[in-house]
Amino acid sequence: MSESQTAIKKQVKVLEDGRVTTPKGFHARGIHFGLKRKRKDLGWLYSEVPADSAAVYTTNTYQAAPLVVTRESVSVENKIQGILVNSGNANACTGEKGLQDAYQMRKEFAAHAGIQEHLAAVVSTGVIGQHLPMEKILNGIAALVDYEVDGNADDFEEAILTTDTCVKHIGVELEIDEKKVMIGGAAKGSGMIHPNMATMLGFITTDAAIDHNDLSEALKQVTNSTFNMITVDGDTSTNDMVMVLANGLAENKKLTKQHKDWGLFLEGLEMVSKELAKKIARDGEGATKLIEVQVKDARDKEAAGVIAKKIVGSSLVKTAVFGADANWGRIICAVGYSGQQIDPNLVSISLGSIKVVENGLPVPFDEDDAYNYLMNDTIKITVDLAQGNESAVAWGCDLSYDYVRINASYRT
Amino acid sequence: MSESQTAIKKQVKVLEDGRVTTPKGFHARGIHFGLKRKRKDLGWLYSEVPADSAAVYTTNTYQAAPLVVTRESVSVENKIQGILVNSGNANACTGEKGLQDAYQMRKEFAAHAGIQEHLAAVVSTGVIGQHLPMEKILNGIAALVDYEVDGNADDFEEAILTTDTCVKHIGVELEIDEKKVMIGGAAKGSGMIHPNMATMLGFITTDAAIDHNDLSEALKQVTNSTFNMITVDGDTSTNDMVMVLANGLAENKKLTKQHKDWGLFLEGLEMVSKELAKKIARDGEGATKLIEVQVKDARDKEAAGVIAKKIVGSSLVKTAVFGADANWGRIICAVGYSGQQIDPNLVSISLGSIKVVENGLPVPFDEDDAYNYLMNDTIKITVDLAQGNESAVAWGCDLSYDYVRINASYRT
Repeated sequence: MSESQTAIKKQVKVLEDGRVTTPKGFHARGIHFGLKRKRKDLGWLYSEVPADSAAVYTTNTYQAAPLVVTRESVSVENKIQGILVNSGNANACTGEKGLQDAYQMRKEFAAHAGIQEHLAAVVSTGVIGQHLPMEKILNGIAALVDYEVDGNADDFEEAILTTDTCVKHIGVELEIDEKKVMIGGAAKGSGMIHPNMATMLGFITTDAAIDHNDLSEALKQVTNSTFNMITVDGDTSTNDMVMVLANGLAENKKLTKQHKDWGLFLEGLEMVSKELAKKIARDGEGATKLIEVQVKDARDKEAAGVIAKKIVGSSLVKTAVFGADANWGRIICAVGYSGQQIDPNLVSISLGSIKVVENGLPVPFDEDDAYNYLMNDTIKITVDLAQGNESAVAWGCDLSYDYVRINASYRT
Repeated sequence: MSESQTAIKKQVKVLEDGRVTTPKGFHARGIHFGLKRKRKDLGWLYSEVPADSAAVYTTNTYQAAPLVVTRESVSVENKIQGILVNSGNANACTGEKGLQDAYQMRKEFAAHAGIQEHLAAVVSTGVIGQHLPMEKILNGIAALVDYEVDGNADDFEEAILTTDTCVKHIGVELEIDEKKVMIGGAAKGSGMIHPNMATMLGFITTDAAIDHNDLSEALKQVTNSTFNMITVDGDTSTNDMVMVLANGLAENKKLTKQHKDWGLFLEGLEMVSKELAKKIARDGEGATKLIEVQVKDARDKEAAGVIAKKIVGSSLVKTAVFGADANWGRIICAVGYSGQQIDPNLVSISLGSIKVVENGLPVPFDEDDAYNYLMNDTIKITVDLAQGNESAVAWGCDLSYDYVRINASYRT
């Protein structure tokens, strides 16, 4: 690591209780309005002033109605002030009526929040193919925005969840132009998590002032190495997106790629995204362990990424990790079917610090050590291709009985 | 269907107890030699005369040692007379010693069977990365070929299994040049079953006389629409192959593409391959149901195939079928992330005869009817893209608790 990078690292500070409301001027609320049985299911994220906004959306051909409406909002002037999220119903594959419902949701939310309609975003997650219960939704919106502005970010974090078992948040602090700048985030994930940003909700807030185009590019770049590198079950959903709001209240000079602290901001954004992504992977449906796969010394970054995702997405690797079975044959097998040009005789594999394959051949190792290592709640698999200098990391989780239980009965 | 096709259909007859030994001059045996705990683990398939041979192999970069040796055998004069198969150990990722072991296995087998070495094929399946226990293997070979030639095909079918729960065989009869021609097959599958012929063992025998090049082409063609259209868990193994042996003892005029009954032979070969493929899918690890996905009215066959395999490979679709939950949202979602150009608003989906989606929108259906349908042991999902005239069928199985149980503890 170069000296300047070390210097940058030092300046991004993870906050103990950081979240979407940590940056100046952001507020969040959540209530239960009746789509889920007991847990909160309607949430609201709000900036005191319109915030520059960038987003990445699912690549699924089926894009849910709220995505269409939110894209439209963002396109007007690249600003968003309020985001309304419901869980329990995805408003996807709901046709013209679904689209009208999403528009109505946006309209009512904007009216109650006192913001212009094109500054409002709407987001839905949950079951596909059912119409939203609009009367309930409208009552919920009325109730939600009547609350005091200083609501509770916990409630928002809970309201966006589906089969997640825990809320996911993080916040970091950095200094730009001698101003404190904060970046916060909240996310939901669980099932249907797979590459290509197709698979979860991520909300990132910052009080930095930042050029819209550069923010947009930064989000894409960071998403590729974080949210797009996680997989739970290989399915890619119709609804999901990551959105970043930058409201400028930190009063730094507008960040651009030319700003001397651009790298620092990027680092902070990546840290927030990576932590959220890892939290999503760790909380994959039925997961008992986080799996982190690093593929290194690859010829190029893309190949490293493909191989890392093949390994972390392999049902056989996932079940082996669940069973704490050091079955490296399944790992090498996934390397082999990744479709990437590798030299089988150069590949080495480690589980944590235990080397199990060297130059394509098994290395004797202590089975008890390996079993003990695989009983940890974070499992690191390292694959060295010995072909070059590029690397990539992907995250996923093990495949347990509970994954089957949860998904064999999700809808009913 | 045209009249001539109807005529062809009539002439392929499925035999009640057809198997690899149904065609003239084929014999098979199996014994327990001690690699598996109790079940038979060494098998032998033998033709009284050298047979024309064609094979398709795994696309995994890691190809097991026996594949290398078998390829070499076939390459000498495209003929094979005997195939030796062991289960319990894949002899993959075993380096130079593994390769020498495979050569020795071939040599000893050829010597005991009294055939030329290049007419012998060796096949291994099981755990990756452990050396074969050669002393046991050699004793097993000696014991195996000392048996009477009229062995039992049941034993062979059992000896090639790993985590399979049942043997898989089929045999058909057709008439060519007024001679009875038989085609028989045996297969193993279970885990690591995925497209690209990377994932199972299939042995097909026929007493037809057939031109080698045309046999080779026919096998590739048929494999693409059968063995390559099944998936259990998306993993692609290092060892697997489908091999066909044609010994000519039926005494028909040599079959070529120009022969008037070429289509009939192809039909027979496809029927045998398709039945074996379906049996493999139905017996996927932990499977309780066979899932058959037909994608029709696609713009091209390839797109139809990709979409069918995405659906049948989706963990969420598989768990929904396991739970008899008519969660068509997961099916349409898989269509959406298939990466194929489709029009979301034209897609219709049926579960059996129950239409659940029409033109991209949900159709009201009776949940009880759907539940009852999904309790069958074969589930047909039909997706109509309304874009063209091409179609494809893929097969898979549901994802159950038992898949997790089996794979969390396979190696230990």
